[in-house]
Amino acid sequence: MSGSSTYMERNGVARGKLGETHELTIARQGQFHYVYGPYAKPTLAIKPGDVVVAETEDAFGGVIKTVNDLPSQKLNMPFVNPQCGPITVAGAEKGDVLAVRILSIVPRGPQPVGTSALIPDFGGLVSNGQLLNPPLPERVMKYVVTEKGVKFNDRITLPYEPFIGTLGVSPEIEAVSSLQPDHWGGNMDLPDVAPGATLYFQVNTAGGYLYLGDCHGRQGDGELCGVAVEIPSTTTVQVDLIKNWRIGWPRLETDDFIMCIGSARPLEDAARIAYRELVRWLASDYGFDELEAYFLLTQAGRVRLGNMVDPKYTVGASILKTYIKP
Amino acid sequence: MSGSSTYMERNGVARGKLGETHELTIARQGQFHYVYGPYAKPTLAIKPGDVVVAETEDAFGGVIKTVNDLPSQKLNMPFVNPQCGPITVAGAEKGDVLAVRILSIVPRGPQPVGTSALIPDFGGLVSNGQLLNPPLPERVMKYVVTEKGVKFNDRITLPYEPFIGTLGVSPEIEAVSSLQPDHWGGNMDLPDVAPGATLYFQVNTAGGYLYLGDCHGRQGDGELCGVAVEIPSTTTVQVDLIKNWRIGWPRLETDDFIMCIGSARPLEDAARIAYRELVRWLASDYGFDELEAYFLLTQAGRVRLGNMVDPKYTVGASILKTYIKP
Amino acid sequence: MSGSSTYMERNGVARGKLGETHELTIARQGQFHYVYGPYAKPTLAIKPGDVVVAETEDAFGGVIKTVNDLPSQKLNMPFVNPQCGPITVAGAEKGDVLAVRILSIVPRGPQPVGTSALIPDFGGLVSNGQLLNPPLPERVMKYVVTEKGVKFNDRITLPYEPFIGTLGVSPEIEAVSSLQPDHWGGNMDLPDVAPGATLYFQVNTAGGYLYLGDCHGRQGDGELCGVAVEIPSTTTVQVDLIKNWRIGWPRLETDDFIMCIGSARPLEDAARIAYRELVRWLASDYGFDELEAYFLLTQAGRVRLGNMVDPKYTVGASILKTYIKP
Amino acid sequence: MSGSSTYMERNGVARGKLGETHELTIARQGQFHYVYGPYAKPTLAIKPGDVVVAETEDAFGGVIKTVNDLPSQKLNMPFVNPQCGPITVAGAEKGDVLAVRILSIVPRGPQPVGTSALIPDFGGLVSNGQLLNPPLPERVMKYVVTEKGVKFNDRITLPYEPFIGTLGVSPEIEAVSSLQPDHWGGNMDLPDVAPGATLYFQVNTAGGYLYLGDCHGRQGDGELCGVAVEIPSTTTVQVDLIKNWRIGWPRLETDDFIMCIGSARPLEDAARIAYRELVRWLASDYGFDELEAYFLLTQAGRVRLGNMVDPKYTVGASILKTYIKP
Repeated sequence: MSGSSTYMERNGVARGKLGETHELTIARQGQFHYVYGPYAKPTLAIKPGDVVVAETEDAFGGVIKTVNDLPSQKLNMPFVNPQCGPITVAGAEKGDVLAVRILSIVPRGPQPVGTSALIPDFGGLVSNGQLLNPPLPERVMKYVVTEKGVKFNDRITLPYEPFIGTLGVSPEIEAVSSLQPDHWGGNMDLPDVAPGATLYFQVNTAGGYLYLGDCHGRQGDGELCGVAVEIPSTTTVQVDLIKNWRIGWPRLETDDFIMCIGSARPLEDAARIAYRELVRWLASDYGFDELEAYFLLTQAGRVRLGNMVDPKYTVGASILKTYIKP
Repeated sequence: MSGSSTYMERNGVARGKLGETHELTIARQGQFHYVYGPYAKPTLAIKPGDVVVAETEDAFGGVIKTVNDLPSQKLNMPFVNPQCGPITVAGAEKGDVLAVRILSIVPRGPQPVGTSALIPDFGGLVSNGQLLNPPLPERVMKYVVTEKGVKFNDRITLPYEPFIGTLGVSPEIEAVSSLQPDHWGGNMDLPDVAPGATLYFQVNTAGGYLYLGDCHGRQGDGELCGVAVEIPSTTTVQVDLIKNWRIGWPRLETDDFIMCIGSARPLEDAARIAYRELVRWLASDYGFDELEAYFLLTQAGRVRLGNMVDPKYTVGASILKTYIKP
Repeated sequence: MSGSSTYMERNGVARGKLGETHELTIARQGQFHYVYGPYAKPTLAIKPGDVVVAETEDAFGGVIKTVNDLPSQKLNMPFVNPQCGPITVAGAEKGDVLAVRILSIVPRGPQPVGTSALIPDFGGLVSNGQLLNPPLPERVMKYVVTEKGVKFNDRITLPYEPFIGTLGVSPEIEAVSSLQPDHWGGNMDLPDVAPGATLYFQVNTAGGYLYLGDCHGRQGDGELCGVAVEIPSTTTVQVDLIKNWRIGWPRLETDDFIMCIGSARPLEDAARIAYRELVRWLASDYGFDELEAYFLLTQAGRVRLGNMVDPKYTVGASILKTYIKP
Repeated sequence: MSGSSTYMERNGVARGKLGETHELTIARQGQFHYVYGPYAKPTLAIKPGDVVVAETEDAFGGVIKTVNDLPSQKLNMPFVNPQCGPITVAGAEKGDVLAVRILSIVPRGPQPVGTSALIPDFGGLVSNGQLLNPPLPERVMKYVVTEKGVKFNDRITLPYEPFIGTLGVSPEIEAVSSLQPDHWGGNMDLPDVAPGATLYFQVNTAGGYLYLGDCHGRQGDGELCGVAVEIPSTTTVQVDLIKNWRIGWPRLETDDFIMCIGSARPLEDAARIAYRELVRWLASDYGFDELEAYFLLTQAGRVRLGNMVDPKYTVGASILKTYIKP
């Protein structure tokens, strides 16, 4: 599955100089999108290396303003998890890869800016409408969120560790709910998709059609109740283009580690996809044969659980760069 | 599910003074065991607070001495993963909890002391005999393992981060393969079961019948190929008794965090069990109501994947103590 | 979830007189579709009660003409499983139900008209690309299929028991691969979707946007290798409209039984969805309370496995009408 | 996996003349057993071909006598699902197969002899204790069950279609709860295990150690609420011995079809195991190569869901004998 671009070319690209900066404000975005697909009109056209400063809405589109704004009354399904974009990248074609370097995520809007909620029949420890048990009560939490911390309650303040919950490119012919993660990215809800990380997505359609939204002030592994610390944000990313690189699933890189990201049900299939893809990466770029990589990951692989609540569950499998110097 | 012992009582016990030390040598153990059950004759009887120094065999019973000793030729199923014990603890009754504090794990035996292997139709990225695909080749790796590191190959030395792969107590009337993890512990293959941690197991039968074995020099999350860095060891644990504490699944505590451990298939059920049990622990001992705990774990819970290869998969869900000071 | 239409109204509609007949030939269809979505231009507009005679292509679009036409060479992913439609139904609005009565399915085209294949990394007993095992060989089978039987080989002729593999309506804002089954129908690959059955689909978008294709000359439970006896066909259905009926998943009715159809992974979730929906149907239309229905299905429910190979697996849960006379 | 016995030998044995008849009454059984294992003292020793007439208790050991006897009050876990046996068969050794031909199942005891129940946190449409949802109410049903029918309520009488819910042999060194199905049989809850069927179980320990119990007056596919029409019974089986036949999972044969039975979680793994084993059977005994069998089952295989509630779920995959005449 490895294409003809070289490791050095690919590695170099993701560390390139910042290009032109584009402001994708709420006003410029206009209508937000609720599917990842090729049928929407692009809101922005950029060149490889350019920087996008996007004003994202929270996953509820900002309609949960107080603890009395119940999702069952305020939300209009399926119009949740609004996405900025699509953004086209000049020269991007099927078979290329978009590299998205996350530069910063800053909360935006009046406090308490963070929202979480128990939504009946949705979440990691409830029946999701398939069972006969009565539902939990509906409940909303509002949190003050600044770059100094997330105030969970009077007793507990949690670190501000922001990330992008939903990020990816368009499928080739499908238009899929922004609630779903898949091989094009989407609603992965993986805390490693944070400032300092570069994401790699396979381009499926000319221009790439990049979408983003659903930023979180922080989140535990698995996004247990299904709703993280949802925030509107000003998010800054650099987008670059790697020509002719075949990857099967999203990949992520930081200074310290490389990671592959799988999304599937049941959860072990997400883990298998992630580890299988990481075996491929080690084989194509780091000088391992596949069985040697399989042995190495057995002893040194790491697994991060993204979500266990979305239409597909998400797992990131990674290895420290210190173990795999080429 | 919380019993009548108090948090302070339970917390105190696990930090008690070391009692008498018992040497459970290979010779004293005599016959090793391959099931966790109440039908074996105890090899050791101790008092609460006593220390056990156990000589464990590796998961293959030491028969894989070189890379030419293939598991398919050397192993005699189901006689794998030999266990020391059972050890009885004076006064332990159904409804109590054994607290096992892990003090040290030292490799034992001639180098290369560590073993890993690709066993056809077994592992996280193979078909496990259910599919029509041809199997992978069988292959054995031998690693030099000292307290300074695990020599993976000439290029890579990994840190020595030992833990006990298989540890737990007997079920009440079942005798279950030492390859399986379950609510009584067993083959959890969870790297957090390491020096510095205290494990809590519900006693199901008088005396508790503690077993242990299957130490690993280190392991990645998920134990991907199914065989970690298997080592024979000298392992030292303190065993204490907490009277009258009802827990549903194994729990683990370090200076920094508390964790609950679930084992099930599919993998999401293991994660649900672990998080559900952690909600109970936060509610019974840390002053949270259950829904508040559910919200907190959504934002601050952590998941460690133990194994994705055993008859049940194992997940540890934890939270830092700094967030839950009572 | 029961709407305000009555049982008698709903029951009556699905047994209504045949309206106008529309020929949806290959020529009239023109471009086939590979997603179920609202973005395609309708090929046919009909009135409730009208009959559609559709010429369907086989799942490979007819490009596998001999056993030497390998899918890996002939197919152009994701352009597989071509669908006729979308067909709009006058007056259909979100919250209504389309009732599709299947009247006949006749093989169409030169013999051998039936195709099956082993496609590497796809199927119920292979690794689906997530594992390290080598793939099976690629292989194509061509079968003579007439209304008298499916000639499997010189020794075995199987009964002709045709059904529609892929049938359903558009999601509201998504456009999803015709390979996937879901709550809107789609690639359910369920042998009960056969002449004599009436299917009920919740309308999600004005007009309903009905699609169909992928007929099978016959299939075993689970569509084990992933490719049934794929045939091009002339398929005749009557389409009716039931105003204001809320259902969660596709339903199916014959003279003998009622069935609900769930699609999900893992497979038990598909079964739970199907049975949960059937509990609802028994409660809303047949005079049971939900727990009584739960007891009855425990003793008399039937499960049909549709597919265990598609992006979601499909299960039909049913009960004989003789047990539930209102 | 096929051993050296021939198809004709194996086929002949299962149709042999009836040998000596043994009455295994409640009194003779004395203590019932709650695990399938080799540690219990045999209650009966028979010769190949002998007939056993066993008085079985119902799954609750008869303690649920009225609708007011709640399981939570009357049951003493883990002492449920009492089993008759173990029965040893002269000459049975590891690597042989026991063939168990079911001759009749007759309800035994005072009416209403049938019991079902909703047990909180147990069943196919409830949370099984892993979730935060409130449980369903506990409820007991008592049914009059005769060989003429199961009286569900005043309106509905269901056919009497009895079968043995729990049947199998001992594992080699494990002793596993009689609630669990596995490769040795056990709590499969599969309605095909009925008069007219012959079951094949791999012998794991000398004598075989056959257990049986848990008869059902009838059951729907999946045993949805987890409790079928539980009856005490007089059950008659013939037990025969097939020397030297290697099978991986239980097999079943009637005049009309052959079936393989898999038990696992998630449910698709049970289906894969069953179909994979059936491919082996078709290859070893019916003249197919494995890929040809894979194609045939794709078009003509049938799936019966046994249970979707036990510790492992059970699926039977079968094919009609009319399609596979050797």
